[in-house]
Amino acid sequence: MKKKVTIHDLAKMLNIDSSTVSRALANSPRVKQKTRDLIQAKAKELGYSRNVVASNLRSKRTLTIGVVVPYISRYFFSTVIAGIEEHATENGYQVIICQSHDQIEREQQMIQTLLSYQVDGLLVSISMETENTDHLKHVLNQEVPLVLFDRKCNGLSLPTIHIDDFQMGYEATKHLIDQGCRRIVHFTGSDQISIYHDRKQGYCQALKDHGLVVSEELILTSALKEADGKLLAQQVLDMPLRPDGIFCANDLTAISAMQLLIEKGVKIPEDIAFVGFSNEPLGNYLSPALTSVNQNPKEIGKVAMQTLLGELSTKPSPDTDRLVPAHLVVRASSLKKG
Amino acid sequence: MKKKVTIHDLAKMLNIDSSTVSRALANSPRVKQKTRDLIQAKAKELGYSRNVVASNLRSKRTLTIGVVVPYISRYFFSTVIAGIEEHATENGYQVIICQSHDQIEREQQMIQTLLSYQVDGLLVSISMETENTDHLKHVLNQEVPLVLFDRKCNGLSLPTIHIDDFQMGYEATKHLIDQGCRRIVHFTGSDQISIYHDRKQGYCQALKDHGLVVSEELILTSALKEADGKLLAQQVLDMPLRPDGIFCANDLTAISAMQLLIEKGVKIPEDIAFVGFSNEPLGNYLSPALTSVNQNPKEIGKVAMQTLLGELSTKPSPDTDRLVPAHLVVRASSLKKG
Repeated sequence: MKKKVTIHDLAKMLNIDSSTVSRALANSPRVKQKTRDLIQAKAKELGYSRNVVASNLRSKRTLTIGVVVPYISRYFFSTVIAGIEEHATENGYQVIICQSHDQIEREQQMIQTLLSYQVDGLLVSISMETENTDHLKHVLNQEVPLVLFDRKCNGLSLPTIHIDDFQMGYEATKHLIDQGCRRIVHFTGSDQISIYHDRKQGYCQALKDHGLVVSEELILTSALKEADGKLLAQQVLDMPLRPDGIFCANDLTAISAMQLLIEKGVKIPEDIAFVGFSNEPLGNYLSPALTSVNQNPKEIGKVAMQTLLGELSTKPSPDTDRLVPAHLVVRASSLKKG
Repeated sequence: MKKKVTIHDLAKMLNIDSSTVSRALANSPRVKQKTRDLIQAKAKELGYSRNVVASNLRSKRTLTIGVVVPYISRYFFSTVIAGIEEHATENGYQVIICQSHDQIEREQQMIQTLLSYQVDGLLVSISMETENTDHLKHVLNQEVPLVLFDRKCNGLSLPTIHIDDFQMGYEATKHLIDQGCRRIVHFTGSDQISIYHDRKQGYCQALKDHGLVVSEELILTSALKEADGKLLAQQVLDMPLRPDGIFCANDLTAISAMQLLIEKGVKIPEDIAFVGFSNEPLGNYLSPALTSVNQNPKEIGKVAMQTLLGELSTKPSPDTDRLVPAHLVVRASSLKKG
C-alpha cells in the first residue's frame, strides 16, 4: 500500500512552514495567491487528500475553553475559575481545567494537550518557572486566542487581566506606615514573577514617599510556600533590630509566619503589625484576623473570559492589558491604632 | 457525490448495536465470528471505509485521564485531585479536570467531552443530582475504564473508592456520647446521596447502641451549603429543648452554624459540643478548633488512580469497592471533658 502524503511531507518538500501549507490547502486568503497555487499544485501532483475529520474539527467551534493555572487548590485560582465558568456557561462554553504545579514542563504539556483537543481559546496563569515562551508563541501561531491572567509574561504582547500590584503593594505598605510602623519587613517571591516584582516596587515607593529608607536587609525573598512562613518568621526573630511591621506578598506565608511569631510570644499587631495579600477566607477566621488585599478573583475570571470572547469574535479588543480594581481589607492584624 | 456510509447506517440496516458494528469492523474477537462476518460483508457491499484517524486515536493510548468533581474549590476534592495527579504523573499520565457544580447536566456534558478527547480513563465523583446513570453506562459501553470516588452510585456496579461513612458517622456520634452528650442533633444532606445516608445511619446506630432514642426532630436535612449553617443553627436555637451536641455531615456547614451559635452566646463545647466532617484546614484555625473526620483525601486520589491503572492493564482488580481508612481528629469544639 502506498504511504499517504501528509502536510508535513509537502512542507518538507517545498521547504515551506507546515502551518502555511495547511492554510494554503484550506484556501486561506492569509497565504499569498502565488504560494497557494504552488502548494495546491504540488498536493494534487502527489495525490494528497485532506484529512476531513481533522479539518472539520479545526474549522468548527468546539465551544470549549482550556484553563491552565498553577494550583486549583489556591483560593485565588479556584475563584478566578468560578468567574470564568460562570461567564463561559452563560455564553454556551465548557471549561476544561489543568494544573501546572508551577512547572514550565507541565504547562507546556498541558497547553499542547488542550490544543490537540481543538479548544476555541486558552486562559492561562503562567507558572513561576515560565521564562521560555515558545509554547505560548506556538498557541498564537495556531491562531488560537490566548488570554493571560494574574501573572504577566515578559517579552510577549498578550492580553493580560490583572490587578495593579504596584498600587496595592503601595497601599498595603502605606497602611502600615499610617499605623505607626517605621521598620517594615517585606516577604517577597522571585523578582522574575511580575506580581512579586510589582508588589515589591510598590512597597519601596511607599517607604520613599514617607521618608523611610529602603533597606535590602528588610526584603526577604523565598518561594512563598506555607513552610517558608516559619523560616521567614525565624529570620525576623533573629534580626538585631526587631521590625514593627511585615507586608507579605501572599496570605499562606503570612499566616504561617504569624503563627510562629505568636507561638514565640510576639504580640500582633502591638509588636509587629501584619498585612498579607490575596484575602484567603482563612485569614478572616484567624485571631487576630489578617489584613489583606482582595484581588477580586471572580471579577478577574469574568473579565478574562469576556476578553477571550472578544478575541473569538472578529473584533478583538485593542487593549492588551486590563486592570481589575482591588482593595485593601483592613482587619485586626494591622490595627495598632484602634 | 454519494453520501459516505457510516457505522450508524450499518447498525440501523442490520439492526445491530453500533458499538458491536464498530468492534466487528475493528475485527474484535469480542464479537462472534458469525456476526463479524455478516457486518464486514455488509460494510464491503456498501463501500464503507473506516475512518482511520478516529480508529487510530481510539486504539492508541492518549496517556490522559479525565477527572470530574462537583467543585474544585472544596478542600476534599482538590486534595483528592492532588493525590490522583501525583500518582498519574509517576505513571506518565496527564490529568484533565472538570467541575460539575453538582449538576447532572454539566456532568453529562463534561463526560461526553472527555470521551471525545479519547481519555484513557475517567475518575468521577458524581453530582448530588445524579440519579439517571445513562451517561455512566455510555462510558462503559465505550469500553473506557471508569472509577468513582467518594459518592457511590446506586444500581451500577463500578469500582468505587470511599471511606466507611457509616463507621465514621458512628465514631463521631459515639465520641459526643462519650463526652456526655445525651441530646445530639444531626445535620445531614439528601438521603439519596450515599455518603449522607451512611453517615446518618452511623449516627442512628451509635445512639441505639448507647441506649439513646433516635428522634426525627433532631435530624435536620439541608443542601449543606455554607449558608445553610446559619439557618440550621437558628432552628437549633428555636428548639424547645436545647441539644447538647451537634454532629454535622460536613465542615463548611458546621463552621457557619458554630459561628452563629457563638454570636448568640452559646458556649462551645460547654453548652453544645460540635463535630464536623471532612477536616477542612480552616477548622484547625477556629476558636474553638473543630473536631472533624479526616477522610484521607490524598490517599483516596492515589487509590482511585491505582485502581484505574489496574483497569487499564489487562488485569482489572476483582473488587468493586475499596475502602480507605479515615479517622476522627478530636479538637476543642467537642471536648467537654478535658
